[in-house]
Amino acid sequence: MKQSQLFTKTRKEAPADETSKNAELLTRGGFIHKEMAGVYSFLPLGLRVINKVENIIREEMDKIGGTEMRTSVLQNKEVWEKSGRWDDEVVDNWFKTKLKNGGDVGLSFTNEEAYSNILKQYVSSYKDLPIYPYDFKSIFRNETRSKSGIMRGREFYWKALYSFSKNEEEHNAFYEKAKVAYQNIFKRAGIGHLTYVTFASGGTFSKFSHEFQTITSVGEDTVYLDEASNVAINEEVYNDEVIAELKLKKENLIEKKAIEVGNIFSLGTKFSAPFDLKYKDENGEEKLVIMGSYGIGLGRLMGTVVEVLSDDKGIVWPESIAPFTIHLLALGDDEVVMKEANKVYESLSQAGVEVLFDDRSGMSAGEKFSDADLLGMPYRAVVSPRSIKEGGIELKKRTEEKGKIVSVDELLTLFKPI
Amino acid sequence: MKQSQLFTKTRKEAPADETSKNAELLTRGGFIHKEMAGVYSFLPLGLRVINKVENIIREEMDKIGGTEMRTSVLQNKEVWEKSGRWDDEVVDNWFKTKLKNGGDVGLSFTNEEAYSNILKQYVSSYKDLPIYPYDFKSIFRNETRSKSGIMRGREFYWKALYSFSKNEEEHNAFYEKAKVAYQNIFKRAGIGHLTYVTFASGGTFSKFSHEFQTITSVGEDTVYLDEASNVAINEEVYNDEVIAELKLKKENLIEKKAIEVGNIFSLGTKFSAPFDLKYKDENGEEKLVIMGSYGIGLGRLMGTVVEVLSDDKGIVWPESIAPFTIHLLALGDDEVVMKEANKVYESLSQAGVEVLFDDRSGMSAGEKFSDADLLGMPYRAVVSPRSIKEGGIELKKRTEEKGKIVSVDELLTLFKPI
Repeated sequence: MKQSQLFTKTRKEAPADETSKNAELLTRGGFIHKEMAGVYSFLPLGLRVINKVENIIREEMDKIGGTEMRTSVLQNKEVWEKSGRWDDEVVDNWFKTKLKNGGDVGLSFTNEEAYSNILKQYVSSYKDLPIYPYDFKSIFRNETRSKSGIMRGREFYWKALYSFSKNEEEHNAFYEKAKVAYQNIFKRAGIGHLTYVTFASGGTFSKFSHEFQTITSVGEDTVYLDEASNVAINEEVYNDEVIAELKLKKENLIEKKAIEVGNIFSLGTKFSAPFDLKYKDENGEEKLVIMGSYGIGLGRLMGTVVEVLSDDKGIVWPESIAPFTIHLLALGDDEVVMKEANKVYESLSQAGVEVLFDDRSGMSAGEKFSDADLLGMPYRAVVSPRSIKEGGIELKKRTEEKGKIVSVDELLTLFKPI
Repeated sequence: MKQSQLFTKTRKEAPADETSKNAELLTRGGFIHKEMAGVYSFLPLGLRVINKVENIIREEMDKIGGTEMRTSVLQNKEVWEKSGRWDDEVVDNWFKTKLKNGGDVGLSFTNEEAYSNILKQYVSSYKDLPIYPYDFKSIFRNETRSKSGIMRGREFYWKALYSFSKNEEEHNAFYEKAKVAYQNIFKRAGIGHLTYVTFASGGTFSKFSHEFQTITSVGEDTVYLDEASNVAINEEVYNDEVIAELKLKKENLIEKKAIEVGNIFSLGTKFSAPFDLKYKDENGEEKLVIMGSYGIGLGRLMGTVVEVLSDDKGIVWPESIAPFTIHLLALGDDEVVMKEANKVYESLSQAGVEVLFDDRSGMSAGEKFSDADLLGMPYRAVVSPRSIKEGGIELKKRTEEKGKIVSVDELLTLFKPI
């Protein structure tokens, strides 16, 4: 994409009301637009990141047997009354609205109720199970405060998968697979090395749930991590008994701030019971379905990447979720430079390489460099009178200080998708 | 995908409360689930159709210079007050809700305000124009009645592109390009032959807007169409003066019922004025941006395809938007049949052909045939003791009465993507 055709522009200063690093950098880079506290629109560059995150998650969910669907935002009061979660006393951050011809509706708060209600219609026999449907959708939480940029929104884009299994054994086997899929997601999104499987409080049906906590000083959670075994304990369940049960040693556990980038938990029959979600087993006996829930916020993951990987010059996108792989810069308004840069842009684009081409005229090299640093594409390729004299393009990683001269052919060989 | 792993099932009877053909067939086929009147969830088969429609639209929008972004569902009251459309007296089918800490917010009703507000931040010079941002998102309309299935919902999934041009000339050139892009969309989605560019009422800034009307007896609109020139006039502007202006002849115009599957219109400065969306031209003079709006409902398009192309056995999907290209049926629980069918399924899947494989056991041939007719994949491939004896697979188009025997290799040659 040519930067001259991208309508967003970078800003030197962050808006005064953005106190979080992710919102500050993403706003300055033109990735997001704040509609109100906790509500952001995703501008073209931001949507490209969200789409890549979405594709990674989709691939990992499909790999473990997930089936995608898309449930509605507007939620039926009667359905939620079955689980007892319609009441504002029970869920205190609902957004609700009214139908013109009477009756209340809710805005999608989470998906257990909608899924249990849909599945009730299709599940009757052991042959129908297990199933693993999932959804990407906008979720709404009426939070009083919202200051963490895209990491904790009133509206956020989310993936939730629910597992419907015949019994505990089948449930546990899938739960372990999902744990691995989640680890893959964070690894592929570039924060695997900072993200720990964390034991957190469970509920009626299991002692623990599992969170995926990414270590960062701006995190809202406190965890105790054991670096050797790559696990952590959320402070809510951190006590001697749990430490012993997990075969960890107190002296090895380090207290850290972290942000929860995903969570999985066993629901047992919490929702299948009120929805009467049953199946007949091989002997004709009726049994309740065993459920599990597997959630991940795409904006939160994107915001976390910005929080933990950026430097003082701007964002540093991992290649897997960068809006573009290469930021190609044409320096100076020299005709030869522009012609050469255009040629490079065309060659790379035709080869299927994702390139953002800074073809804007009337801008200094300094301005283009600092924009490239702020926007954070993994590679910067510069065409300038000097690079042409030296026989090519100056290629530099976002995280490197110095670049090297490569030819167009070398560039193509390096980046051409297989 | 194996049908045994698809959690949805077909139903013989439509729910009593569904009176439209699209909702009846889509519900019976397990494509959609009704959450409440006018609000549907898209089950796995239905989402596959929506995704294909979305990809067609995206390709056509990108081809004419569109840039995708994603604006929020929650809408800021202050932004809408600028255009005067916040007031319930002005827009009578808003969904609104309240923030926990005070203040009203709306649910996305349309996108002119959000776009004008975002663009205001980025547009200042003639160099910044033209731009063509667009969005796929959920739109909410608080309709009193909702009986047309997925064709007129309280919540619906929508694409809207807005054009921001320097002047009328630039606007008109794009408007004509968009018209062609829209015609391409309906052609590609399989209803081009029934869809007419229709002159409808304009507004302050242009005499006409243009609708894309698909002829069907269940349509809510009345149009007068001229089959020879492929255009129509909406009854709202149908009069002698307009007929003469369009150089049509009254005696050639046929009255028909139709459904509006898309519309485009010129907005002039209707929104750029209240948002003070201006740019400096080459002479440093400040001018208001000229806007246009280009909308299309994905569920409505999908519903229209079902309304106009289905037959008395069920849905007939065009290949371009079918959930799967081939419905492969294994008939009888014979081991040889199942082995052969599995082989065909694997070969096709590996070749990248989208196949729904009816591998369910304990079902009669009649049940599988009628399911295949209801679900409406463009091709049916049957593996049975008879087809094996005759040397292959019985291949039949959904719209044909009789099939023919082909070998696996012939099947691969026919369907393998290039």
